[in-house]
Amino acid sequence: MSILVVGSVAYDSVETPSGKATDVLGGSALYFSAAARYFAPVNVVGVVGKDFEFSKIEFLKQDNVDLEGVVMDEGETFRWGGKYHSNLDDRDTLYTYLNVFESFKPVIPKNYRSSEFVFLANIDPELQLDVLESIQAPKLVVLDTMNFWISGKRKQLDAVLKKVDMAILNEEEIYQLTGNSNLFDAATILRKMGPRILVIKRGKYGSVLASENGYFFGPAYPVTKVVDPTGAGDSFAGGLLGYLAGCSDLNETDLRKAVIYGTVVASFNVEDFSFNRLKQINRDRIETRLEELRRMTAF
Amino acid sequence: MSILVVGSVAYDSVETPSGKATDVLGGSALYFSAAARYFAPVNVVGVVGKDFEFSKIEFLKQDNVDLEGVVMDEGETFRWGGKYHSNLDDRDTLYTYLNVFESFKPVIPKNYRSSEFVFLANIDPELQLDVLESIQAPKLVVLDTMNFWISGKRKQLDAVLKKVDMAILNEEEIYQLTGNSNLFDAATILRKMGPRILVIKRGKYGSVLASENGYFFGPAYPVTKVVDPTGAGDSFAGGLLGYLAGCSDLNETDLRKAVIYGTVVASFNVEDFSFNRLKQINRDRIETRLEELRRMTAF
Repeated sequence: MSILVVGSVAYDSVETPSGKATDVLGGSALYFSAAARYFAPVNVVGVVGKDFEFSKIEFLKQDNVDLEGVVMDEGETFRWGGKYHSNLDDRDTLYTYLNVFESFKPVIPKNYRSSEFVFLANIDPELQLDVLESIQAPKLVVLDTMNFWISGKRKQLDAVLKKVDMAILNEEEIYQLTGNSNLFDAATILRKMGPRILVIKRGKYGSVLASENGYFFGPAYPVTKVVDPTGAGDSFAGGLLGYLAGCSDLNETDLRKAVIYGTVVASFNVEDFSFNRLKQINRDRIETRLEELRRMTAF
Repeated sequence: MSILVVGSVAYDSVETPSGKATDVLGGSALYFSAAARYFAPVNVVGVVGKDFEFSKIEFLKQDNVDLEGVVMDEGETFRWGGKYHSNLDDRDTLYTYLNVFESFKPVIPKNYRSSEFVFLANIDPELQLDVLESIQAPKLVVLDTMNFWISGKRKQLDAVLKKVDMAILNEEEIYQLTGNSNLFDAATILRKMGPRILVIKRGKYGSVLASENGYFFGPAYPVTKVVDPTGAGDSFAGGLLGYLAGCSDLNETDLRKAVIYGTVVASFNVEDFSFNRLKQINRDRIETRLEELRRMTAF
């Protein structure tokens, strides 16, 4: 079954201890699709400027990703520049030029409206609400957000939270959203705010799945050399939701495997800049790392 | 098979967000023994002052712990005072009165010298070396240390590291010891410095076992309310080594289960001040949490 993702398409300039990449392809919608396409067809809604070279996303179009919903507006494509600290956990944003993304009003093409799986990437919660209005009968709606919206558009964010089935957040985000810094208390509070399923991203410490079935702890894959963490969260969500879109049921076993698939795809993504690594892998290589993680957690 | 532990016996005064405990029993040797005794007999070597009330450790003596090696010296017992921050991850030391511990020269009683399992708790590496001289044919020697010795007695510490089979350290300690802040690179470097088995404690993020068999990721047990983290590391080591002392082999499966037993015992320990919680539990309750963790990591 196909997945709809609504998010950003960007040109990123990134500096990490491993090197530099200037004006390379990025954005939540693309990182998500590049990851999810290994498992299910993806429909993308986003906006680009007149400067955008569609040839650069041809590799997605060739492989399970429908880009009909990516519209071109007057102006330039969204640009982000960032520099990671030596620990790779922290980064400084050098610039954010929203450009065409500033007035982005997602329009969901007719043939996307029957999508059963929806990923609301990190965009204005008002737009996230608009998107949900257009979807007929989603089976699973998943939300991402960030500190900017948590502090700036809390009321709208609360309204979206009520309408989603799952939220994928990092630790700081759930602490900020709940005002509670005990992970398990915060998870309980957040699940009462709407999403019955919560996935907490802890970076190199892995992730936690919290649902009515209790907790599941997934490790991070031991990446020998992290080159560029950009897109880790979105490729994690892509692998996770991609796998779920292929499940007939959405039971606890499916959810846990989905978290691990997300982990694995994200682990590849961070091994190079932009989409360099996600262009090279295949489902077999994903399965290999999944089995490695299974062996590394069994006792 | 019995375990020898050499470490501190202390009176602690601890303040945490949950409350205060003044002049309560503490110290690495006692936390270790209180945890390990659920699995194997423990022989303790340590020192106390004239003010020490042996009645307070009667519960250990009654249950698998031999205290013949705890000697009484002129002076007062080691005292430590600390205050935890609201996140419970950080703490300030309010005072450290080494007292009799300052001139501690561990003497290993004759009947302890055949111990096959040895835990060198966090003491001066010179003393750790002395202890090893007295042990006839240890099967497994495990080391703990801290930043103070890493920066202050590096040469001596390097010498002990060469003689131990396993080190149990936290992330900061292995980064400081290796000068490398990538966990996996640091683990490889550290294992070349001596210990063929390395256990990395990551607090609420669980632990990592690194050996010639690769990595094992163990989660932390989801404790609903952490009351006092004091002794978490030593009770973790106690559960871990205690379990190993009962294994006929020391294979990868044993090591992994040992890490989880350590995790479980430490999870009980932090639920109350001092030894209050470790006085209440039993092997059955430990097994229950182990099985819970198994369910929370399976996929």
